[in-house]
Amino acid sequence: MQPQAVHQFLETLQARIVAALEDIDGQRFRTDNWQRAEGGGGVTRVIEEGGLFERGGVNLSRVQGKALPPSASASRPQIAGRAWEAMGVSLVLHPRNPYCPTVHMNVRFFSAGETWWFGGGMDLTPYYGFAEDARHFHEKCRDALAPFGADCYPRYKRWCDDYFFLKHRNEPRGIGGIFFDDLAEPDFDTCFALVRSVGDHFLPAYLPILERRKAIPFGSREREFQAYRRGRYVEFNLVYDRGTLFGLQSGGRTESILMSMPPRVAWRYDWKPAPGAPEEALYREFLIRREWT
Amino acid sequence: MQPQAVHQFLETLQARIVAALEDIDGQRFRTDNWQRAEGGGGVTRVIEEGGLFERGGVNLSRVQGKALPPSASASRPQIAGRAWEAMGVSLVLHPRNPYCPTVHMNVRFFSAGETWWFGGGMDLTPYYGFAEDARHFHEKCRDALAPFGADCYPRYKRWCDDYFFLKHRNEPRGIGGIFFDDLAEPDFDTCFALVRSVGDHFLPAYLPILERRKAIPFGSREREFQAYRRGRYVEFNLVYDRGTLFGLQSGGRTESILMSMPPRVAWRYDWKPAPGAPEEALYREFLIRREWT
Repeated sequence: MQPQAVHQFLETLQARIVAALEDIDGQRFRTDNWQRAEGGGGVTRVIEEGGLFERGGVNLSRVQGKALPPSASASRPQIAGRAWEAMGVSLVLHPRNPYCPTVHMNVRFFSAGETWWFGGGMDLTPYYGFAEDARHFHEKCRDALAPFGADCYPRYKRWCDDYFFLKHRNEPRGIGGIFFDDLAEPDFDTCFALVRSVGDHFLPAYLPILERRKAIPFGSREREFQAYRRGRYVEFNLVYDRGTLFGLQSGGRTESILMSMPPRVAWRYDWKPAPGAPEEALYREFLIRREWT
Repeated sequence: MQPQAVHQFLETLQARIVAALEDIDGQRFRTDNWQRAEGGGGVTRVIEEGGLFERGGVNLSRVQGKALPPSASASRPQIAGRAWEAMGVSLVLHPRNPYCPTVHMNVRFFSAGETWWFGGGMDLTPYYGFAEDARHFHEKCRDALAPFGADCYPRYKRWCDDYFFLKHRNEPRGIGGIFFDDLAEPDFDTCFALVRSVGDHFLPAYLPILERRKAIPFGSREREFQAYRRGRYVEFNLVYDRGTLFGLQSGGRTESILMSMPPRVAWRYDWKPAPGAPEEALYREFLIRREWT
């Protein structure tokens, strides 16, 4: 395995993505370099109150630790308490326009002694759904994985559906995408190539959707619904997301980890969309398990 | 032990508290009766967009289960997987005026076979701190526990400081109050009396603070700071709070459990109050461990 090559790819990926996002937003991302007491650090790139993005972050991190925390080794008792290294690029973008979906992408590499694996994926969370967008996003996910076997996309698509699911709401977080973890077969080179392909397909998967939706007019009704639905994003990330919990437990940089939190969120008691309203269509047609390709 | 007597007390407590809150708010709480498939149910009393409360709930629940979930039996392996009953009143109130603090109170009774215990407490989360209010709240907490031994308040006050603490922020949730759990000594009658006293002291602890602060004028600056600080409330409840996690894990009623979420919340990247500003005083003088009585 070559951690240095992975890190180089991640650095370039962060730079490429931020450049493209700055291009479409019109404003620059802020840069924060940070170091971690136990070892390692990262570069957080953040935008707030941008032209298009109300809040978003593209984080690069490479951190080391002397003893693996429980959340990371639950399924691998043989490496519990071992020295480890984790590196990755993780992004969440919350556009202001409720017709533009929130997106999440992550690619990561983990090693502890001779044990290593990759993980990652990307998934889309619309407020107002468009079948065309969902299809496009999933097609790009499928394209990213096509060179690695025909069963790859269906498996990682199902994994994403299983992972980004709010049990207490009996509701998916969004329209899914792909998710994978513990990727170490057949060999380092193939796994690394797959992860590079996922990272490289993020911009083609997301930017065309932004371009199509960014100019749709919206008002307070759409903003209210967006704020309400963003509550689900908060609930998922703080209650279920392993990356968030691992980060917070392992003494990660809180402001970088919680970059995923939406800028403005609302909770309302037992709220339901009016039957036939566009807000109801999100639940009926998009927040369900279905094939998009 | 007499679960029926506890339940009767809880019903009366909910009714008394809601009546007093309706009185000060000017609007009525909505009532939702709910049943739980596995057994039991509850009465959720909710207010949203009230005269004083932007969102708040006073929940009564009495639920039974056939097998105790892991979050409840971590420290008591002997009752893991046993049939159980839990009952309690739990409230969170989020006033609109940022000069009025958010408050939380809970009293609960848990039994599994011959094993039983009480738990509960109350704590205050100001946005703009007033030493007078913090002192008053803690004095009422101390009064509630005074008949049960001089060491009771200091122990439960410390327990509250330890419990309502956001490790990833290195920050207390608010100015604390009291917290206790696993209360089963010296006997049922004494424990029940203590819990009654805590419940009975809630209104005298909170209402005078509301009365003093509810008419202070505020603007968008105070509302922004309140929304930002409410993010910490969300982070605590979803990442750390055992009651929330137990409820969500045990198939509790999601809308009742997440009644604790604030109505409007904001996250901002790496935000810090201006030195010398009233917002900074909250961090410097109130969000620290200190004695208030």
